[in-house]
Amino acid sequence: MPEQLSIKELQRLVDSYVTERDWKRYHKPKDIAISIAIESSELLELFQWKPDPVETGALNDELKSRVGEELADVVIYCACLANSADVDLSGALLDKIQKNRRKYPVGKVSKAKDWDEVRHSLETV
Amino acid sequence: MPEQLSIKELQRLVDSYVTERDWKRYHKPKDIAISIAIESSELLELFQWKPDPVETGALNDELKSRVGEELADVVIYCACLANSADVDLSGALLDKIQKNRRKYPVGKVSKAKDWDEVRHSLETV
Amino acid sequence: MPEQLSIKELQRLVDSYVTERDWKRYHKPKDIAISIAIESSELLELFQWKPDPVETGALNDELKSRVGEELADVVIYCACLANSADVDLSGALLDKIQKNRRKYPVGKVSKAKDWDEVRHSLETV
Amino acid sequence: MPEQLSIKELQRLVDSYVTERDWKRYHKPKDIAISIAIESSELLELFQWKPDPVETGALNDELKSRVGEELADVVIYCACLANSADVDLSGALLDKIQKNRRKYPVGKVSKAKDWDEVRHSLETV
Repeated sequence: MPEQLSIKELQRLVDSYVTERDWKRYHKPKDIAISIAIESSELLELFQWKPDPVETGALNDELKSRVGEELADVVIYCACLANSADVDLSGALLDKIQKNRRKYPVGKVSKAKDWDEVRHSLETV
Repeated sequence: MPEQLSIKELQRLVDSYVTERDWKRYHKPKDIAISIAIESSELLELFQWKPDPVETGALNDELKSRVGEELADVVIYCACLANSADVDLSGALLDKIQKNRRKYPVGKVSKAKDWDEVRHSLETV
Repeated sequence: MPEQLSIKELQRLVDSYVTERDWKRYHKPKDIAISIAIESSELLELFQWKPDPVETGALNDELKSRVGEELADVVIYCACLANSADVDLSGALLDKIQKNRRKYPVGKVSKAKDWDEVRHSLETV
Repeated sequence: MPEQLSIKELQRLVDSYVTERDWKRYHKPKDIAISIAIESSELLELFQWKPDPVETGALNDELKSRVGEELADVVIYCACLANSADVDLSGALLDKIQKNRRKYPVGKVSKAKDWDEVRHSLETV
């Protein structure tokens, strides 16, 4: 296994995993998108009914490990969807970061006192 | 930019992006997990009220590009959460793929005629 | 119990339930909104990896009962949020139906051949 | 309009609304479940990147009105799903409240100091 897992390698790993199990027949984009939403909710469940764990010092190794596992489920399904919908995920990630850099210019947003002001600063461009 | 974007590089890119905008103050794990769920729904919205686009041949370049963009939003926030919760995302991904390989043994699940039978085959191990 | 459960009675029932358990301390609007999203995903899970059950004739009593139970979880938390955020849910429902009636005028949308055309017909008003 | 909107009346109102627009063709259970998840996320978006509005005193009339509107979207789609999947929603709601009453006995859960202890108290029954 490479020291640095790349997005492309992740896509290849999940592709082998899915192909070996004859699961391409289930892996239609719409159903994978549903699965991403479901896994995102399982991740969110770790934070339900509690204050943020960083604020309360509750971010211990056990919670980190559970967050890592649920996060992996989300990202693995994202790689599945990229495979199934024939999307260049690495390219889409780099493009989106560039687009966000332009949408939220550093000088403008970093002075906002809260998130409503961030939004407002952009609407009044 | 590297030819092969790695998970670690993605995490560094989003970390710079967030730090430059002074957004670490918003980037608490609970709020990022909320954001992953919201972005997953925006992705799902591309498939709402329609049959699967692969089945109907509707997966054209425009749809691929929109799927890529929404998928990027989800994965970028996953990288943010890994940063904020101090999770080794590459390790978590490789571990989860291994765990899934053991949970769904090839011979057992590939013969199932539908997903209910996949589940059933595992419950009766 | 009344023959016809009203929205207001539902709100009162869940309010007693929450108060008796001393759970008002957890029932902050943000956390209830998180819970609605989580329960919606559990509902969605009943349809994951399968064609629509009405199309395949798979909507049997067992599935109806599971849909009813997950649906109840979503609506119960909606009543909790209305209580916690001091929202008149009956009024909001009637207002929204009226607003939707105006937004999607019968003659205009019923002739559209698919959902994209519904959207398009409205954008070109 | 009745003074007290009942669940059954809500179901009838949305049924007329859907029928008049010739939208039964879209209203398959799976797609409505997707729509409930999407609307839940729009509701959640009102609380993104902010502390709970009750805690900060930010629950003003404007926010209440937006919460009411998004909440209505979720509950309206729940009524649509009950119609489409032929589920007795009033009955399911009353059953679920009863089931929850038994699952979380008052004496046991109200003394728990946090939500983890609530869960724990039940696992050790």
